Amino acid sequence: MAGTDDLADRLIAENFARADGALRVGGLDLRALAEAHGTPLFVYDAALLRRAYRALTTAVAGFAAVDYSVKANPNPAVIRVFREAGAGAEIASGAEFAAARAAGVPAGRILFAGPAKSDADITAVVAGGIGEIHLENAEEIARVAAAAPPGRPVRVAIRVNPGAAAQGGAMRMGGKPSPFGFDEEELEAVVDRVEAEPRLHLCGLHLFAGTQGLSAGTLLAQWAYGLDLAARLGARTGRPLETIDLGGGLGIPYFAGDAPLDLGALRDGLGPLRSRVAADPLLAPARIVLEPGRFLAGPAGVYVARVRAVKASRGSRFVITDGGMHHHLAASGNLGQVVKRDYPVVAVAEAPGAARAPAAVVGPLCTPLDMLARAAPLPDLAAGDLVAVLQSGAYALTASPTGFLGHPTPAEVLVDDGRAALIRPRAG
Amino acid sequence: MAGTDDLADRLIAENFARADGALRVGGLDLRALAEAHGTPLFVYDAALLRRAYRALTTAVAGFAAVDYSVKANPNPAVIRVFREAGAGAEIASGAEFAAARAAGVPAGRILFAGPAKSDADITAVVAGGIGEIHLENAEEIARVAAAAPPGRPVRVAIRVNPGAAAQGGAMRMGGKPSPFGFDEEELEAVVDRVEAEPRLHLCGLHLFAGTQGLSAGTLLAQWAYGLDLAARLGARTGRPLETIDLGGGLGIPYFAGDAPLDLGALRDGLGPLRSRVAADPLLAPARIVLEPGRFLAGPAGVYVARVRAVKASRGSRFVITDGGMHHHLAASGNLGQVVKRDYPVVAVAEAPGAARAPAAVVGPLCTPLDMLARAAPLPDLAAGDLVAVLQSGAYALTASPTGFLGHPTPAEVLVDDGRAALIRPRAG
Repeated sequence: MAGTDDLADRLIAENFARADGALRVGGLDLRALAEAHGTPLFVYDAALLRRAYRALTTAVAGFAAVDYSVKANPNPAVIRVFREAGAGAEIASGAEFAAARAAGVPAGRILFAGPAKSDADITAVVAGGIGEIHLENAEEIARVAAAAPPGRPVRVAIRVNPGAAAQGGAMRMGGKPSPFGFDEEELEAVVDRVEAEPRLHLCGLHLFAGTQGLSAGTLLAQWAYGLDLAARLGARTGRPLETIDLGGGLGIPYFAGDAPLDLGALRDGLGPLRSRVAADPLLAPARIVLEPGRFLAGPAGVYVARVRAVKASRGSRFVITDGGMHHHLAASGNLGQVVKRDYPVVAVAEAPGAARAPAAVVGPLCTPLDMLARAAPLPDLAAGDLVAVLQSGAYALTASPTGFLGHPTPAEVLVDDGRAALIRPRAG
Repeated sequence: MAGTDDLADRLIAENFARADGALRVGGLDLRALAEAHGTPLFVYDAALLRRAYRALTTAVAGFAAVDYSVKANPNPAVIRVFREAGAGAEIASGAEFAAARAAGVPAGRILFAGPAKSDADITAVVAGGIGEIHLENAEEIARVAAAAPPGRPVRVAIRVNPGAAAQGGAMRMGGKPSPFGFDEEELEAVVDRVEAEPRLHLCGLHLFAGTQGLSAGTLLAQWAYGLDLAARLGARTGRPLETIDLGGGLGIPYFAGDAPLDLGALRDGLGPLRSRVAADPLLAPARIVLEPGRFLAGPAGVYVARVRAVKASRGSRFVITDGGMHHHLAASGNLGQVVKRDYPVVAVAEAPGAARAPAAVVGPLCTPLDMLARAAPLPDLAAGDLVAVLQSGAYALTASPTGFLGHPTPAEVLVDDGRAALIRPRAG
C-alpha cells in the first residue's frame, strides 16, 4: 500500500487481527458475530477499553486520575468495564446518571456537567448522592442550591470558559464567547457568589478547553492553564481545592494523516505540572481528574454492516449496505465535520494481498448524506459480504438519528475473554 | 425591521398569529401547550398540513396526483391528515409501511423506494399488498421477484438516475454517479431484465432528481425529463405506462433570502407537460404522481424549547434552552449543511415593537455543535421564557439523534380545529 494512507491497516494490526483474511475482534470472527446477532451491529472489545484506560492512567500517573465520560458510549456494560478498571464517571443527564449507577459507579464518583441541566435531573442526582455538580451559569447557582437537602450542601465546581491561551484541539472550546461555563474574566466574582450560598460547597474547578486533541503539547498547555485558574480560585476562597477537573478532549485518529496522541510525550511533559502542584499548598491536596470518553471507548468499537448491492454508476463503485448515517452519523460526516473525510472502512473478509480500489460505501437511506465513505480502498465485494467502520466505539450509535426512516436499531455486543455478550438487543 | 431579513415574521404572518404578543399555532397559545405537555415540544397544525396539500394538488391538477413521503414526518397522525386529504404514501422501510397502514393508507396506494431494502421489509410489504416497489439496483430485481407469491407478480417501477439535464435543487441527485436507481444510460437493458422476470410486473418509472427545490423552472425541467424517460421505457416495453413517479424535492424557505416555491409559476408552466402527456399514447394512461414530504409537512411544525439560562460571554448573548440538536439536527446545521445558517427562531412571547438583538440559541448538550441559531434576532429573554424554531414539521424529530446524552424525547402535539391532541408522548 505504498503511497496510500494506511490508517485502517495500522488500526487492524494494533487493535484487531485477521485470521484467514477475516477480521477478528477480541479473538472472535466478525462474520460469526454478524451471523449470530444480525447486521448492522456494533461490537466492542473489552480488552481494548481496558488497554486504553490503562495506557492513559499510566501516562498521567502521579498527576491525575481518569474518569469516563459516559456520553461517548453510555451502554452500562461499557461503563462497567471502566468502573472495574478504576474509573469514576462524568455524566450529562439524569439518564446517564442512572446508567452509571447501573454499571456500579458509586454516586460519589460521578460528576455532572452540561450547560442546561434540568431541575428534574439536578434533583435526581442530588437525591442520589452525586459527587459533584459543575456550575455553568448564574441561573444554575440558584437552581442547584434549591435542590440541596437541609443541612447537606451540594458539592459543586465552577466550570470556566478559558481565555485565549488555553486554546487547542480540533474544536476549540475556549478563548471566545461560549455557552459553557463562566468566562474566566469573572472568576473571582463567581467564586464570591457561590461562596455566599450556604447550600453549596465549592470544592473545585472544571476546565474543558477543547475536543479531539491529538497534540500532547496542546493538552499539557491546557492543563497548565487549568492549574493557573485553580490557583486563582483557591486564592479567592482562601482554602485548598479538593478537586480539579481538567476535562477530556483527548483524541483518536480518524482520518488519513492523523497521528495518534503521543502518550509518551504526554507523560514526559507532566514533570513541570507535577512540580507545580506539589509546590502549591492550594493545589497539592486536590484530586486532579481527566474525564475523556472518545479516547477510552473509540478504538474498541467496530460498526459492521452487510452489503446489499454493489453498483457501478458512471465510473464509480458504490457498495450499498444496510448500515449508514442513522447508526453512525459521525462517520457520514454530519456531526461536526465541515468537509466529509472518510473514517477507516474495511472489508471484514479480505484475501491477503487482494487488490483494492476506491469505493463509496453508502447506506439504505434515501439521501446522498447517507454515505459512510466516499472512497474507501476496498477489495471486490458482493451482496452478502460485510464491511466494518473502525474507531466506532464512541459517539456512534447514541449520537445518531436511529429513528430516521424507521430501520431497526442495531444490537451492541461486548467481546470479553473470548466471549461475546449481547449488551443491547436489536430493536424495531 | 428594514434592512434585515424578515423570513420569521413573514412565516408567522402567513402560517400562525400572535395574540397579546404570544405565538399561536392553529389558534392555540404555544405557552399553554408548552405548559400542558412540557418542553421541548413539537407542535403541528393540521390546517397547515391540509393547506399545503391543497395548494400543491391545485397547482398540479390535471397533471399529477400528490402522495406523501412518510420519511419527512412518520407520525401516523400526520400521515392520516394527508390520507384524509387524498394522499397515498411513499415509504422507505417496513416500519414506515406499518405507520402508513396504521394511518389508514390503503396498501395499494403505498410506494416503496430506497437503495438498500431489506429482504424482511420486501417480504412484509409484498405480503401486505403494497402498490408498487421501486427497483434501485440489479440485486433488487432478483430479491423482489423472490418475494412474489405464486401467480401474483409484484408491481414494480424502475428508478432512474438521470443525466445531467435533469439537475436542479439545492442537493443534486442526478447527472453524476449515484447509488440511487439505475443510470439512465442503461435504461433499456434494465427494462429487458425486469420484463424477463415473470414474477415482476413492470408498471412504471421513478425519477428523483433533487431535493429542497425552490425553483419552479427547475422542477418543471426535471418533470419534463422524467416524461422523456418514461416514454423511453414505454417504447421499450411496447405498452403504455401505468405509473410515473416524478419524486418529491419541492422545497420550503429555511434561510434569510430564501424565496418560497412559486406554485403559480409551477401551475402556469405545466401546460406543455400536460399536452405532451395527452399526445403520447404511452404516457396518457399513466397515473403521474409527486411524492413530497418537506413541502407538505415542514411549514406546519414548530419546535418549542424553554430557556434555562441567558448568558453574556465576551460580548455575545447566549440563550441556553432545553432544546437542541438532539431533537432538531437539521436546525443545528448538522444535516447536510456545509456552513451553518440559521433556521427561523423566534420568541414565543414578544411585546409588539420590542427591540431585538442577535442571540445565539444553544441546547443542553456538551458540544458547540448544539446550536439552534448563531444569531437569531430576539428580544430580551430570561430563564423560563420560550423560543420556537419554525419550519420544523419535516426532517426534525425523527431525523435527529434523540438518544444523545440521554435527555427525554419530546412529545408531539397535533392541533386541529382548535384542539390539541397528544400524538406522541414524551419519553425518557
